[in-house]
Amino acid sequence: MELAPDIEDKIQQSFAAQRMMATLGARLDRIEAGRVAIRAPILDCAQQQHGFGHAGLTFSIGDSAAGYAALSVMPPDAEVMTVEMKINLLAPADGEQLRAVGEVVKAGRRLVVVKAEVFATKSDRTTGIALLQGTMIPL
Amino acid sequence: MELAPDIEDKIQQSFAAQRMMATLGARLDRIEAGRVAIRAPILDCAQQQHGFGHAGLTFSIGDSAAGYAALSVMPPDAEVMTVEMKINLLAPADGEQLRAVGEVVKAGRRLVVVKAEVFATKSDRTTGIALLQGTMIPL
Amino acid sequence: MELAPDIEDKIQQSFAAQRMMATLGARLDRIEAGRVAIRAPILDCAQQQHGFGHAGLTFSIGDSAAGYAALSVMPPDAEVMTVEMKINLLAPADGEQLRAVGEVVKAGRRLVVVKAEVFATKSDRTTGIALLQGTMIPL
Amino acid sequence: MELAPDIEDKIQQSFAAQRMMATLGARLDRIEAGRVAIRAPILDCAQQQHGFGHAGLTFSIGDSAAGYAALSVMPPDAEVMTVEMKINLLAPADGEQLRAVGEVVKAGRRLVVVKAEVFATKSDRTTGIALLQGTMIPL
Repeated sequence: MELAPDIEDKIQQSFAAQRMMATLGARLDRIEAGRVAIRAPILDCAQQQHGFGHAGLTFSIGDSAAGYAALSVMPPDAEVMTVEMKINLLAPADGEQLRAVGEVVKAGRRLVVVKAEVFATKSDRTTGIALLQGTMIPL
Repeated sequence: MELAPDIEDKIQQSFAAQRMMATLGARLDRIEAGRVAIRAPILDCAQQQHGFGHAGLTFSIGDSAAGYAALSVMPPDAEVMTVEMKINLLAPADGEQLRAVGEVVKAGRRLVVVKAEVFATKSDRTTGIALLQGTMIPL
Repeated sequence: MELAPDIEDKIQQSFAAQRMMATLGARLDRIEAGRVAIRAPILDCAQQQHGFGHAGLTFSIGDSAAGYAALSVMPPDAEVMTVEMKINLLAPADGEQLRAVGEVVKAGRRLVVVKAEVFATKSDRTTGIALLQGTMIPL
Repeated sequence: MELAPDIEDKIQQSFAAQRMMATLGARLDRIEAGRVAIRAPILDCAQQQHGFGHAGLTFSIGDSAAGYAALSVMPPDAEVMTVEMKINLLAPADGEQLRAVGEVVKAGRRLVVVKAEVFATKSDRTTGIALLQGTMIPL
């Protein structure tokens, strides 16, 4: 599926309006039809008690990547909202940078099933740190 | 079950070391054996594109409340880590303040099953906005 | 909320049409508005490799109890379908009988959030063996 | 990774001891290291009220496929148990036969993260009907 330019603009604008993403230093990395990637450094302000990235950081960019993946396959005037999301944490968010890749599993008229994977990069080594699976609802 | 004072201290210190909690303006509200509450305002810096609290904020305090509830029933030298967490979002995080109440469902030797509920308060009206269910592992 | 007699009939008929429930020996135990309980023995035919009830048995009655709880608060001509369900298994399904209690957490127009708890009874002792949380969609 | 013959035997024996699998007409379809497939017809006895396969059938074979995938990468004397499992239902279980493919996402010493996909085949057309993500614990 081709991604329409107006959909890409809509995602860019929605992302820019999410102050949480700015707080976390997150940036849109790649937008394709049904697949969106978000990158974020592990800022001091998003750390947990041991200096790793907080699970809330991992969840935030994983959920957002999945949500924008859903938005990328919706009609131009639609919005999406997370209904529910499950996250399995595979390893500590240890490193310089995280990357979340969200994908559409099934786009229905009433619900969109999504998944996301989050990776941490530490001096050139990349590790999968989280797996998300959830449901978005078009508004 | 009685909560030992050293356990309460440990939770206070761990919470204070979580920079993400400071970034979100979150505070420990109540610590009991098996039950911990966290409060957070909906700061501008934690909003999504419509001015509501970001799902990442709701998740962060819900997951942390559940994690500290687990920690409250562990031996004094233990730590806990989130294995997995499921969140159902019930309503937008609309209002002045959120409150997450985490509880231990079952504390096993190898795993602790937890749940949490998150509420939003808007001019004296309190609404349940999220329900979490997950697993912690003692370290 | 009061449960209308025609809703109770509808649930009884739907349950009777679920051959899987008959296979598992399951029976409707209690129907209230927003809360439905299902009972099932642990039949040989529903055991796993150690003689305990299979996770599929626990899931089946937990999911069904939650689904009928959702149906109990819907308009008379509605049906519901499971969108997603998360189950945490707390203990082996050990005993003579299981009982699943499903409840509505939030009934929206487009989605119903539900939860369920499953208990096992073994010679007069009852243990919580599973916790479910999920989403139903009205059809 | 190579699958040792004694591991394959162990999985075959464990599967044969699961009476629930026999009740559902399920059969091991393929065993590889980290990946196990189970096939099952949609028997009358496993149907829900509309004649489709019950969500409990889909869950049972998806959970078992994921569990045996975990077992396939464990030491020969280990067993595994489901800690928690999340299922998203994508489409009704409509057709002659289901096939569940379970995979190991990450095998840790204390926990194994797994996923599974379930497909339905109806007159030569195969559709993804469910996606599972969960956690197994070695015993």
